[in-house]
Amino acid sequence: MGTVGTGVAKILLDTQGRHPLLQTLEIAKVGVRSRKPRRIDLPESLFTTDLASIVTDPDIDIIVEVIGGLEPARSLILQAIDHGKHVVTANKAVISRYGEEIYEAATAASVYVMIEAAVGGGIPVIAPLKQALSVNRLQAVMGIINGTTNYILTRMQNEGGDFEPILTDAQALGYAEADPTADVDGLDAADKIAILAALAFGGRIKRDDIYCEGIRNVSAADITYAETLGFVIKLLAIAKLPDSSDPDCIQVRVHPTLVPVSHPLSSVNGVNNAVLIEGDPIGQVMFYGPGAGEGPTASAVVSDLLSIAASLATGQNPDPLLTCSHSHMLSILPNSEVVTRLYVRLLVKDTSGVIGKLGTCFGQHNVSLESIVQIGIQDGLVELVVVTHEVREGAFQKALSEIRQFPEVKDIPSLLHVL
Amino acid sequence: MGTVGTGVAKILLDTQGRHPLLQTLEIAKVGVRSRKPRRIDLPESLFTTDLASIVTDPDIDIIVEVIGGLEPARSLILQAIDHGKHVVTANKAVISRYGEEIYEAATAASVYVMIEAAVGGGIPVIAPLKQALSVNRLQAVMGIINGTTNYILTRMQNEGGDFEPILTDAQALGYAEADPTADVDGLDAADKIAILAALAFGGRIKRDDIYCEGIRNVSAADITYAETLGFVIKLLAIAKLPDSSDPDCIQVRVHPTLVPVSHPLSSVNGVNNAVLIEGDPIGQVMFYGPGAGEGPTASAVVSDLLSIAASLATGQNPDPLLTCSHSHMLSILPNSEVVTRLYVRLLVKDTSGVIGKLGTCFGQHNVSLESIVQIGIQDGLVELVVVTHEVREGAFQKALSEIRQFPEVKDIPSLLHVL
Repeated sequence: MGTVGTGVAKILLDTQGRHPLLQTLEIAKVGVRSRKPRRIDLPESLFTTDLASIVTDPDIDIIVEVIGGLEPARSLILQAIDHGKHVVTANKAVISRYGEEIYEAATAASVYVMIEAAVGGGIPVIAPLKQALSVNRLQAVMGIINGTTNYILTRMQNEGGDFEPILTDAQALGYAEADPTADVDGLDAADKIAILAALAFGGRIKRDDIYCEGIRNVSAADITYAETLGFVIKLLAIAKLPDSSDPDCIQVRVHPTLVPVSHPLSSVNGVNNAVLIEGDPIGQVMFYGPGAGEGPTASAVVSDLLSIAASLATGQNPDPLLTCSHSHMLSILPNSEVVTRLYVRLLVKDTSGVIGKLGTCFGQHNVSLESIVQIGIQDGLVELVVVTHEVREGAFQKALSEIRQFPEVKDIPSLLHVL
Repeated sequence: MGTVGTGVAKILLDTQGRHPLLQTLEIAKVGVRSRKPRRIDLPESLFTTDLASIVTDPDIDIIVEVIGGLEPARSLILQAIDHGKHVVTANKAVISRYGEEIYEAATAASVYVMIEAAVGGGIPVIAPLKQALSVNRLQAVMGIINGTTNYILTRMQNEGGDFEPILTDAQALGYAEADPTADVDGLDAADKIAILAALAFGGRIKRDDIYCEGIRNVSAADITYAETLGFVIKLLAIAKLPDSSDPDCIQVRVHPTLVPVSHPLSSVNGVNNAVLIEGDPIGQVMFYGPGAGEGPTASAVVSDLLSIAASLATGQNPDPLLTCSHSHMLSILPNSEVVTRLYVRLLVKDTSGVIGKLGTCFGQHNVSLESIVQIGIQDGLVELVVVTHEVREGAFQKALSEIRQFPEVKDIPSLLHVL
């Protein structure tokens, strides 16, 4: 009965003007940490602090888990499944880490584990991936799936400000947590892209293998330079199938990314989220909306309740569009093998000679460049920005470690990916 | 076996890497207008020009109708339903005009009529409206749902060009039909918003009651002035619930609209479509993607086939998230009662006196203004642009008919809606 739980109860208690099937759902019990006044009109007798009594209650068909965190959420979900209950959860951390255990138990018990609210707040993205989009061969799923970092980056861009003061302000305004690690270091986005990638590419992902770089090192300078070059900087979570002939090896990463201003993800601002999906033959579609908050997340939770209710009304067999069918592991491409565009900013002593040396060194490592631009002068040093074409990241890193040794190169303050 | 039919067959003949349930679908017959070589590998024996033999074949479970046009599509759909077949159609014209007849027949026969491909090409929008979003009380559905007009308006904006030459060029390039009426006069968008509004607000819509204004009168000048004021001009289809206490009266319209550049619909360019849905408690979500073409439309058709197959695998009862449940008529608010912002451009003889007279006249009719801006001088006349706050359109029209009589007012070249 926290933020999301309250939102769910509000919808279920006031079904007028919503799908009529919601009237078949009844709130049987409400698990709470402590007894205290609530801002919702539910009989006192429904509340209990004994969570195990809910997940084992034989009269209950569906459990909504909106506790968050790993434990006791994971154990309660497993216990509920063991007792034959369907589960609706918003818990990306549990699903991205214990999805295998949970889905195996769910398959064995013939129950659904529904997770629409775990990614993208209210935006319907899990259901389309399992249903409408699954007739396509998917090639990529990527997006802005953490509202806090998008809020901070949007403000940095609009105000020309640096990360730290805007983070502090975001915390004061309630847009960032007191401990902002999970958001600003990209861990929350990595949990979510693990879930999206597993659905899109039909296999399990080892959460810890996902490369994850947060936004702490994004500077106001890079945002300005990116703008000059026609980009905005966004924290993207990206999952791609690099080679369609090897569908079990995918690329999954979270990092700040220069997004061309013409790209649909570039105009997703503030706390909004967006997920872009690319497949054959559909091409690119994008889903956009509020990535968090009581109302949007509650809408997603209740949409899962509706899907379960509809399936139970249709028949006794598991609905193949709601169940999770994959069971094999997907391997994640090592960083060095990833093919991507890159942006690097260097401080050098003089330009005439050094641009040639840079170009030659990148060329020797088969790193094809799109541009080398002198973008400013700082403390008597020339500031250069290099943007590559699509290159193998390992080759780029080799070239860059040689360039770091050039006597003319005083510093390499930033290295970012380019979409 | 035209563009979309060929795309559908391609997916069904090559299911590797797609949802495994597609392997349970088999192409039994292919209806064609004439026998000729096809760019797809199907046995000759499947093709027939006798369409009635398909929709009455007792061995066939599902009919895909991608003929387009009103007849014989409507009759074939009804005949298929009478013979107990589920129907998947991309035909917005038939559904928006004969939806009542078709859905009554489908309910009586306990079959599904699925229409994902009728709106927004490949973008999943019908399914989310029937499913995930239906737990919300919806307040508005609006969007850019005609690719041809969006392509023309995008080019007019990028090139500063006028409508006629760009239409001619679009026709030459295949982005507009030889007879462009259905697109440029907004009729196609009106068909589609009728379908979306019926789903969003749970009632039937009289297609002919929809106010529909195309883009023929949008001028390069207005696009430039709109840009100066922070807007882009888009052909929007808009359905709204103006008063939540009267859920049976809605506003449904298609017209060129000034969209603020900060609005997510403003950056939808070219042949892309986007549908924005607003509800309680979800807030605003937007779906974006290719609005037409073989691949996207085929993806939508096959997603409907998948949903039917999944429902049949789950059980014998109709899936309440796939059926159409509403049967009462919604009334459409008359134009004069619509509350909207408006943009009007006037050519006047002199400004000092006339701005006061304009302001007074609008004020007398309770039309509250956001701005009056002198935007240019043309043939010795001053060009003024007036943008209102939200006003009753009837009151605005009364004020404007008085203003038209002012001796200083030489011409009112354009009147547009503002989002």
